[in-house]
Amino acid sequence: MLRLGVVLILLFGLLMNKAYADDMPAEQKLALAYLDAYSKNEFSKVEQYYSRESIFEDKTAKRKYKGRYRIINFLKRARSGILESRFQIDHMFNSGSLVVVIGSQYYRGPGEQFGKPGKIIELAIPGVTTLTLDMTENQVKEHIDLLDYQTMTDQLLTQ
Amino acid sequence: MLRLGVVLILLFGLLMNKAYADDMPAEQKLALAYLDAYSKNEFSKVEQYYSRESIFEDKTAKRKYKGRYRIINFLKRARSGILESRFQIDHMFNSGSLVVVIGSQYYRGPGEQFGKPGKIIELAIPGVTTLTLDMTENQVKEHIDLLDYQTMTDQLLTQ
Repeated sequence: MLRLGVVLILLFGLLMNKAYADDMPAEQKLALAYLDAYSKNEFSKVEQYYSRESIFEDKTAKRKYKGRYRIINFLKRARSGILESRFQIDHMFNSGSLVVVIGSQYYRGPGEQFGKPGKIIELAIPGVTTLTLDMTENQVKEHIDLLDYQTMTDQLLTQ
Repeated sequence: MLRLGVVLILLFGLLMNKAYADDMPAEQKLALAYLDAYSKNEFSKVEQYYSRESIFEDKTAKRKYKGRYRIINFLKRARSGILESRFQIDHMFNSGSLVVVIGSQYYRGPGEQFGKPGKIIELAIPGVTTLTLDMTENQVKEHIDLLDYQTMTDQLLTQ
């Protein structure tokens, strides 16, 4: 009887998860698929989300790249040597094709480019990513990051 | 002895708070002062933060106003009848004069403009506010909101 109860609860959980995923707007699903490839450095997948007109901008670092080729080049440079990276999403919402993702970007890798040579460092940088999507082409027209680099600097101090 | 300990802890707490406030970048202090007046509907204070060139935009509602006069007019209309409003800040950071505020905007007021006539409704809308400041004039050049209206709609369903 107890076992049946557990099975029913698991089944219910699965169904609810499915319902939740089905409820998710198509825009948020596309954003998740893109951010998954993006955070795992799967560049051959990521580049399919960009066109020649796509914009990638970090407003807090005053960096801006236009076009698939330049964006991928930048990402490859920025991520070289990284051992682990992921995107922790705290909250996501959208208004049409504008998707807002609040969360943290997590990195583990060599400290060279952060002034910590010979050390493996860990960073969890809070921030906001806004994506403007092209829902016909399943692409990202604009990726804008706002990142809390002060928190990053504080984290580096103790490593 | 115990009492002295408590006093010392309290004193330490006060000093730490002061240190924290002193540590806060001037940009974040200005943002807080502005958002305080903004959320309390102190329009005579709020309007001093805008110039004729200021932009107020809600990207998720596709609304945009330019100039002190138009912005204040919009705010007065939007807030009319509101009984209580405040801004709960979960995280704030800045990069120079660009300040990012992650949090929720809380409202309590008549439900008329939300399709709930005769009812008092309560809303806590999660979102991100980015402010571009003019630190010489102590003004807000650009106020951009990204608000989770789906969560708002969900909250209205049960009221």
